[in-house]
Amino acid sequence: MIYSAPEKDAEFLLFDVFDVEQIWSKIADFRDIDRSTIEAIIAEGSRLSAQTLFESFQESKHSGCDWNGGQVLAPKEFKNAFKELTSGGWLGLSGNPRFGGQGMPKMLGCLIEEMFWASNASLYLYGTLTVGASLCIDSHGSEDQKKAYLEKLYSGQWTGAMALTESHAGTDLGIIKTKAEPDADGSYTLTGTKIFITSGEHDMAENIIHLVLAKLPDAPPGTKGISLFIVPKFLMDSNGDLSERNSWSSGSLEHKMGITGSATSVINYDNARGFLLGEENQGLNAMFTMMNYERLSVGLQGLGSGDLAYQQAAQYAKDRVQGRSPRGPQNENGVADSLLVHPDVRRMLFTQRAYNEAGRAFGLFVGMQLDLANHADDPVAKQLVDLLTPVAKAFLSDKGFEGAVLAQQVFGGHGYIKEWGVEQIVRDARIAQIYEGTNGVQALDLVARKVIKDGGRAVQSFLEYVRNTRVDPGFEEVLEENLNRLDSVTQGIVRRSQTDVDLPGAVSADYLELFGLVCYAWLWAKMVHHAPNDEYGSAKKETARFFFHRLLPRTVFLEQSIASNSDVVMTLSDDAF
Amino acid sequence: MIYSAPEKDAEFLLFDVFDVEQIWSKIADFRDIDRSTIEAIIAEGSRLSAQTLFESFQESKHSGCDWNGGQVLAPKEFKNAFKELTSGGWLGLSGNPRFGGQGMPKMLGCLIEEMFWASNASLYLYGTLTVGASLCIDSHGSEDQKKAYLEKLYSGQWTGAMALTESHAGTDLGIIKTKAEPDADGSYTLTGTKIFITSGEHDMAENIIHLVLAKLPDAPPGTKGISLFIVPKFLMDSNGDLSERNSWSSGSLEHKMGITGSATSVINYDNARGFLLGEENQGLNAMFTMMNYERLSVGLQGLGSGDLAYQQAAQYAKDRVQGRSPRGPQNENGVADSLLVHPDVRRMLFTQRAYNEAGRAFGLFVGMQLDLANHADDPVAKQLVDLLTPVAKAFLSDKGFEGAVLAQQVFGGHGYIKEWGVEQIVRDARIAQIYEGTNGVQALDLVARKVIKDGGRAVQSFLEYVRNTRVDPGFEEVLEENLNRLDSVTQGIVRRSQTDVDLPGAVSADYLELFGLVCYAWLWAKMVHHAPNDEYGSAKKETARFFFHRLLPRTVFLEQSIASNSDVVMTLSDDAF
Repeated sequence: MIYSAPEKDAEFLLFDVFDVEQIWSKIADFRDIDRSTIEAIIAEGSRLSAQTLFESFQESKHSGCDWNGGQVLAPKEFKNAFKELTSGGWLGLSGNPRFGGQGMPKMLGCLIEEMFWASNASLYLYGTLTVGASLCIDSHGSEDQKKAYLEKLYSGQWTGAMALTESHAGTDLGIIKTKAEPDADGSYTLTGTKIFITSGEHDMAENIIHLVLAKLPDAPPGTKGISLFIVPKFLMDSNGDLSERNSWSSGSLEHKMGITGSATSVINYDNARGFLLGEENQGLNAMFTMMNYERLSVGLQGLGSGDLAYQQAAQYAKDRVQGRSPRGPQNENGVADSLLVHPDVRRMLFTQRAYNEAGRAFGLFVGMQLDLANHADDPVAKQLVDLLTPVAKAFLSDKGFEGAVLAQQVFGGHGYIKEWGVEQIVRDARIAQIYEGTNGVQALDLVARKVIKDGGRAVQSFLEYVRNTRVDPGFEEVLEENLNRLDSVTQGIVRRSQTDVDLPGAVSADYLELFGLVCYAWLWAKMVHHAPNDEYGSAKKETARFFFHRLLPRTVFLEQSIASNSDVVMTLSDDAF
Repeated sequence: MIYSAPEKDAEFLLFDVFDVEQIWSKIADFRDIDRSTIEAIIAEGSRLSAQTLFESFQESKHSGCDWNGGQVLAPKEFKNAFKELTSGGWLGLSGNPRFGGQGMPKMLGCLIEEMFWASNASLYLYGTLTVGASLCIDSHGSEDQKKAYLEKLYSGQWTGAMALTESHAGTDLGIIKTKAEPDADGSYTLTGTKIFITSGEHDMAENIIHLVLAKLPDAPPGTKGISLFIVPKFLMDSNGDLSERNSWSSGSLEHKMGITGSATSVINYDNARGFLLGEENQGLNAMFTMMNYERLSVGLQGLGSGDLAYQQAAQYAKDRVQGRSPRGPQNENGVADSLLVHPDVRRMLFTQRAYNEAGRAFGLFVGMQLDLANHADDPVAKQLVDLLTPVAKAFLSDKGFEGAVLAQQVFGGHGYIKEWGVEQIVRDARIAQIYEGTNGVQALDLVARKVIKDGGRAVQSFLEYVRNTRVDPGFEEVLEENLNRLDSVTQGIVRRSQTDVDLPGAVSADYLELFGLVCYAWLWAKMVHHAPNDEYGSAKKETARFFFHRLLPRTVFLEQSIASNSDVVMTLSDDAF
């Protein structure tokens, strides 16, 4: 198998399409970053992922995690690679410089994260939860908490985990049962069982910092009565050194369809000691800092899987000879032509490219809005981050899975055989549509909270933003048609949902897909505008053309599907299902 | 896990929608079949699948096949279930009565096959290849060959396998290397290696009959130089008793993404003795008898997976409580409402139902045309079988996989965990899109061989046939609109492909999907026309409404996508991929 990180795309997007030098020059925190530093970081991230991480991915192909009386062992092939990842400071790339982070823009982080996800998704799960936990502590923790945890998390000496789900409570966190009783010293005692805890227990770090949702004894019911706690594996003594083992443990490992190198535990909190993070009963809000980070990251995971799968399929299509071109033999001395002579194989590869390359631009655009929101206090950027995060999580992961399945199809029968590796990418990619809030939850978040709640104003901001950018004139008209479509569909949903309470959920999935497609149309038109006059630029133009002709027309279908009211799904009696 | 065979649907489709009593009364071979016999066979097939086969599926969940020095062991949990399947005569259900078959219509076979696929796909693979091999021998074998093999195959005492693929030759059979040298006694000596041989070697039958594609020494190049051979595991002596072991063996088992209970071997033919089946160099034509049977069967496999997955998801959605209805609490005494209050969950379940129930009708319709072609020599039926077989294989398996993925999504995180079982259905369903000719090959077969080659006449026959049937008036207009769409798209492709040789492959996948959707629209309109005025009928009407509002509009998108020419996929240079 092969993996080559998209360095060229990264630089094209950063410097040409989004012109970050101009943007960063206006942000105090980023003013001093120069292009050569960015290029060096991308080159090193590329090397690390294509070599170290990808090699450990391939070596660990037949390994999983082991559970031994509460001890959890990550794949042994991960150990050195994880050390190289953490010792390079990569988990602190966008971290707070006051506590040892490198303070780099999120845009850069998005590009690097995609490479890590693509090259070894199971391994990077130990990293991304660490980054998310540190972000949450940085946003909601006390100065003492930041001092105690951030540097160790940025360095990967300690890792993070988030503990939300219980067996009866997944999407519906309002009904969790884990309890936190206040103690005299200001700490809390936690009791309960959490499931699906990614990196909850493993042997690759000295300490593991859980961020746990639990309820105080007198908490109001539902989501307004949830608090967030820091619950480390090892407690610290008064010198800040690790001392006693906290009383929680891994009850078992989950047996999963994919990402088998990622240790997913059931965690039992048995009078475990925890420390309040943020305010009492404000835990879900605080956790959302982490979840929003992880949601964009999981979108990038989908993208990474999609790109990894594409690279395998493209290489296979070049190498494999089978059948003849409809134009007659192209490889006259061989027994057959390469798969690339077959238009349908090209259609599959183009579909993957069109989604991957626009997805990369989209992730980067959301990262840019995060930078503007967090470092330049830009109000429109804040609005766009809220609006686009669910789209990034769901649309990138949906298209990543779709792309992996197409790549598997290019391999024919070999795609179904473990030795060839592509079926593993399909299994690994599938999780990104499910965890961190299923893609159905993302779609409902988009429609209900981000669109209807503010009467569609955020969408108006987005449309205005898009219309103020320069795009290739050849795609302007069809782009405008699709912006108008998104506009009218949005207004229709806002209006119709006033009298049809089930409408948002009935159309949410189609609306999110429509939204994603229109974003990608804009980004393709924008990329073509900036594409150079060389082979790289010409491939961009051809892929854009494919997207506009073969994929974008889906918006016409989605608009029609969204036009029907919720009675189409709601009338059938429960018993009839 | 649960599985309940669709008995009610089977009878509704047979007796109400397709009125088989009237059809069969005009066919000599079927004139004497009475309704109660059919109902009894359906009831017994339902019991066998829901109990015996499904239990063995669940018991074998963690088993695979074992390879031991060339010996292959099927999962031990399969043994008794396979015995019950074969001793019940099910593999000879549509077999030739002159040699012990039961001579039942293919329509009935389609319904029974779906049940077998759904309840234990890995196990039924040992069966379906036996049925296919017997059909091929019955169609192309000598009287002696029929006498020697058919009864043993119908009874499952012996099983069948088809050996086509070689590591360098999958879709492209013209380049196979396996050789057959004629011997003095009229038999042949075969040498070569085949891969992906389903049921090629196992321990559930006394003898295994391979149908092997190979080339004679003086064979013309390409597909015109392929002959077909019967190559049994054990040869027979002059009394017809099993004697010496033939010289082929399983070199290894493939490690697959799913259907792990099905033994898939690499088979080495090392001077193996074979017997010509049909004429020299006419092997591919003969093999197509088996392949066409298997293609419809594999479509039914996709349908079976889709229905099995749907049943799990519907039950889970009823049982699982999570969140509250947009209308306010519906289950006031519980901590949350059932998943069925969520419109997006209903959308996912409806999508599965809409594809499954129309898919069942479609498979049955193709089965009906097979019956009319083979037992009433009906020329239109022959045309329709040729036209619709690739659609049945690809569209049913695509929608089966799509449905399984949706079912997994309904399960949220539990859908990714092996213990819950639904992820296995996803992995199992995936193969149906790949084997028996990838779905890309089906789409090209449809466009190039079945549509363009006869100038679209078969499609005209189909449209005429459809327009002569009675459908629900409420759906007549939108159905007619879609029939016209299929008509004009077809004519456009026929015309445009005269000057654009790459067009058929460029649009084939979209065209097949368009074709499938229009077929389903017709069948939904037809089913509603026949739906009774009760709860069952009302569920049919609601599902039809969902299909027409939420799924059928895809045809508008597909029409637009097909409108672009092949340069959209062909221009990009090979190197740029």
